Amino acid sequence: MSKDTVTIGLIQMSVGTDTSANLEKAVKRIREAAKKGAEIVCLPELFRSEYFCKEEETEKFKLAETIPGETTEALSKIAKELGVVVIAGIFEKRARGLYHNSAVIIDADGSIAGKYRKMHIPDDPHFYEKFYFSPGDLGFKACQTRYGKVGILICWDQWYPEAARLTALLGAQIIFYPTAIGWLSGEETSSKDMEYAWETIQRSHGIANGVFIASVNRVGMEGNMRFWGSSFVSGPFGETLAKAGKDEEILIAKCDMDRIDDTRHNWPFLRDRRIDAYKGIASRFLEDE
Amino acid sequence: MSKDTVTIGLIQMSVGTDTSANLEKAVKRIREAAKKGAEIVCLPELFRSEYFCKEEETEKFKLAETIPGETTEALSKIAKELGVVVIAGIFEKRARGLYHNSAVIIDADGSIAGKYRKMHIPDDPHFYEKFYFSPGDLGFKACQTRYGKVGILICWDQWYPEAARLTALLGAQIIFYPTAIGWLSGEETSSKDMEYAWETIQRSHGIANGVFIASVNRVGMEGNMRFWGSSFVSGPFGETLAKAGKDEEILIAKCDMDRIDDTRHNWPFLRDRRIDAYKGIASRFLEDE
Repeated sequence: MSKDTVTIGLIQMSVGTDTSANLEKAVKRIREAAKKGAEIVCLPELFRSEYFCKEEETEKFKLAETIPGETTEALSKIAKELGVVVIAGIFEKRARGLYHNSAVIIDADGSIAGKYRKMHIPDDPHFYEKFYFSPGDLGFKACQTRYGKVGILICWDQWYPEAARLTALLGAQIIFYPTAIGWLSGEETSSKDMEYAWETIQRSHGIANGVFIASVNRVGMEGNMRFWGSSFVSGPFGETLAKAGKDEEILIAKCDMDRIDDTRHNWPFLRDRRIDAYKGIASRFLEDE
Repeated sequence: MSKDTVTIGLIQMSVGTDTSANLEKAVKRIREAAKKGAEIVCLPELFRSEYFCKEEETEKFKLAETIPGETTEALSKIAKELGVVVIAGIFEKRARGLYHNSAVIIDADGSIAGKYRKMHIPDDPHFYEKFYFSPGDLGFKACQTRYGKVGILICWDQWYPEAARLTALLGAQIIFYPTAIGWLSGEETSSKDMEYAWETIQRSHGIANGVFIASVNRVGMEGNMRFWGSSFVSGPFGETLAKAGKDEEILIAKCDMDRIDDTRHNWPFLRDRRIDAYKGIASRFLEDE
């Protein structure tokens, strides 16, 4: 059912204060990506607005919307028109006073094929997400689309091998990471190491699981924060298929799904997992037990 | 009880057909490493002999020995004399016809502080380990030594995030990877990618868990296989602290244990693990369930 070769398009974009303009820009970029051959297009995390979590302000809850809602309607329309799959980060209003940092997968016929709610919620200076988002309660997901079975994880999830492993065990062949990660002004030097670590750990998930990784970040300056872009697609060996710079860009990568079989044949990591010995993974810590 | 700064010495060595000479060389190198300030010294996987798993030959079981046995006696003696911790890979004979690919931690007083039996056993062309070794039944381990709490994982374990995670949750602050990995002659080109993946995934375990990684490989040509060396020590941010070339070398790295707190304060990954949602990790596969 899935295709042998899948072309990914990552929309590395900047975002402004006008949320309607952001949506319009996203739709325009999806059109451009499709023209370049993209079959699965992914937008960054929370692409409808500036990254509001750098402060804790109840006012910002107004940015949230339902799923389905305005954003999914617009994206369903363009997905159907172009026959592409669209993945997009959405600030989800689930109920009065209950919010999630979510992402949807819209299939190439315009239907919502899947929804993921960010499972790991960060909270550190300038990334006060625990104030805004309840941790996801849908678990990890892999979703069959017209062009392949894909998983979504969101930003902070990047740091958790468990998240990638579970998504791959569910059958995802490409894991998408919509992201909003940046440097504070003046921190660029120490942040080189951050960017290195960020890329290394995501590639490693591809290697451990023999899957493709597609990570898409926003760019541009918002207040004193510069989002570093550097979106990339890596293969099941961790190899680079495509990598963006620090400016707006549509990143296109062709992924040969047979590479997954080849890699897993030569490095049969999934075969040798010691599933009898992993119970402790579900513990917070083991040293003190 | 643990020290704030720990100096690691990795013995990247070649190995010949004379098993006594290999042990003598190892002891000599431990002495040299101690002279350079090393407090915890690690030898490669199965350092007593050439890498015999490239064929399946019952004759090779003669290379196995008990723990304690000849190797641990010699290493205990030098560990005690120099006041260093020694980690070493041993082909363990557990009973008649029952063998493990093991490693011991000998404390600085010469006592055996811990033993680990390789949990993930590879089997692919030229690495027929499933013929020789029963999978480990001791689980994952972290072991308090005079200079710090350390974990050992062996070679193929490198590819499993679960192994590193469990070892870190048990309190290990440095994870050692005694290793024997190489290229077949003529495969060097495609194998560049292998070496890249090998290093990337190990560094990623350091990042995910906020611990130091110390990986030590053998070097030299054995039959048609060239072991690629490239031993390294990386920090809790994935950063390189020391990296060896392709020849014999004693690699020394000073590790500041407070870096673990610093890294985990800034990137509190352990805080946010979704231990309520990881049960599936103990499954072989989930797509078909």
